[in-house]
Amino acid sequence: MQNTPKEWQVIQNIRSRVQRHNSHTIVPLGDDGYVFKNFSGFSVIAQDMMVEDVHFRLDYASAFDLGHKSLAVNLSDLAAMGANGHLAQVSLALPKELTESWLDEFYRGMTTLADRYGVEVVGGDLCASPRGLVIDVSVHGSCETPLTRKGAQAGDLLLTSGPLGLSTAGLQALREDRKTLFPDAVARHLRPEPRLDLVPQLQKNASKVHALMDCSDGLVNDSLILTRNALGLHLFPENFPLHEDTKEIKGETSAYEKALWGGEDYELLMAVSPADRHLFPTWREVGQFTESLGMFLVHGDGKEEITTFKGWKHF
Amino acid sequence: MQNTPKEWQVIQNIRSRVQRHNSHTIVPLGDDGYVFKNFSGFSVIAQDMMVEDVHFRLDYASAFDLGHKSLAVNLSDLAAMGANGHLAQVSLALPKELTESWLDEFYRGMTTLADRYGVEVVGGDLCASPRGLVIDVSVHGSCETPLTRKGAQAGDLLLTSGPLGLSTAGLQALREDRKTLFPDAVARHLRPEPRLDLVPQLQKNASKVHALMDCSDGLVNDSLILTRNALGLHLFPENFPLHEDTKEIKGETSAYEKALWGGEDYELLMAVSPADRHLFPTWREVGQFTESLGMFLVHGDGKEEITTFKGWKHF
Repeated sequence: MQNTPKEWQVIQNIRSRVQRHNSHTIVPLGDDGYVFKNFSGFSVIAQDMMVEDVHFRLDYASAFDLGHKSLAVNLSDLAAMGANGHLAQVSLALPKELTESWLDEFYRGMTTLADRYGVEVVGGDLCASPRGLVIDVSVHGSCETPLTRKGAQAGDLLLTSGPLGLSTAGLQALREDRKTLFPDAVARHLRPEPRLDLVPQLQKNASKVHALMDCSDGLVNDSLILTRNALGLHLFPENFPLHEDTKEIKGETSAYEKALWGGEDYELLMAVSPADRHLFPTWREVGQFTESLGMFLVHGDGKEEITTFKGWKHF
Repeated sequence: MQNTPKEWQVIQNIRSRVQRHNSHTIVPLGDDGYVFKNFSGFSVIAQDMMVEDVHFRLDYASAFDLGHKSLAVNLSDLAAMGANGHLAQVSLALPKELTESWLDEFYRGMTTLADRYGVEVVGGDLCASPRGLVIDVSVHGSCETPLTRKGAQAGDLLLTSGPLGLSTAGLQALREDRKTLFPDAVARHLRPEPRLDLVPQLQKNASKVHALMDCSDGLVNDSLILTRNALGLHLFPENFPLHEDTKEIKGETSAYEKALWGGEDYELLMAVSPADRHLFPTWREVGQFTESLGMFLVHGDGKEEITTFKGWKHF
């Protein structure tokens, strides 16, 4: 199906915006496929989709935000495998209302993030959408030692690389039209940062990392995956890393509840033996895996079992 | 964002349908990313999206058809680079109306094709869609020598690997509710076959292939890309490979017009020197590149310039 001359021009503009000089490129963007020399180590791939009115709304997410976030959530998957990012492909189902300048801002948001981590946008697809915006990004990275979700042991500590619940606080601020009051929370929600900065530390201590994943669905839901239904977990709410915005925004859910159930922080969760905890000084201890099953909130004065599991549905 | 237990079950069912034993797998489907040992040669990636009511309609395309076609169009991009396919990731924005059995048929269609070429579905995403089905597939393949779109020379023959216009005839049959009369055309439209079977022949003669691409947007539009606005082209309509269905369906457009303008046949187009034409005995000569610019239809009794370019828009 043919593109009109104007549409070719749009595609040319995108190409010139995203294309970089990359010593791995054999055949650049613009052919039937992109061809590259293999990166050293193992290859890691991931692919994540964002759907209008499911994952975002166009009234609060800008084109720049969406370009950033749709790549960020994918790069977060690479970080969660202990991998560096190299390549991205992006497909867009694009409603008519979105203009050429929207598209340019989208790719500017994406490449601004991509450039920070040496990632190049090398392909994808651009389609008309009769109904709503859909963004689908795939990424290609590499690592020497993949760090998987499987391997947490009883007694291991559960660490997180940074604040939890902040993205949910930001979403609340956006929905309540209070975004200027909680700028960090809003930035976390709209432009989360993939923790690729931690990859060197993770690879250096790879043999000590028992399990690793990114926290996209909330602490409870994600750490449940790390237990593999074979371990229990004690969570330490008093030790949760809570940003000031998360504490101050108040509302229907408390800061603790936001940390427990709120998704999309894109921090990393790690299971590590207490003996090796010192290798990760900047990470916060938020729980400990136990031999006996069940997930508990441990307060100073007792513990409370989490028996109902909630969260947002995306399918 | 959390999946409910029932949704986890659906995802588990998909995983068990698609997962294969693959000696390249280091970390299988089900972690943050899929990890694999590099394949030999260069890596080739592509990503193509299909949007409901733009690329297909659910009243005539079955779940099985869409699983097949969304992968086929991507594998066709690999064939068009002279590459074999290895891995696929698929993202779906899925409207509520589509049931679990629809989803199962979709993956059955996809894996039936994938298995034929040793391709494995190793990841992707599954999202709710408030409005319409969107399918986005990315593929990973490899080749020793990439075959690009650039390199056609004046005097080169334009060859096609098979019938042109057949997919358009199939679409017409579907729209006119005459699908039982034109089964080959309908099959070509709903379940096009990527020409990965030609990859060994193409790689064996790689140094003789001046330019290669797949024919997805119609002969005129695609061969225009091969000219790079630096060459002209004479097309030989009397030599076009036309399937009986294309000739017999009649309608607003003739069989020749379907071959010239109709898209989605997913045959390959090649530019090759007349001296090497014998290396590709099963391919049909449909044109010849010329030094002087312009695209012409050459009949027994003269030639006619193509001055207006038409086709379907997809963006």
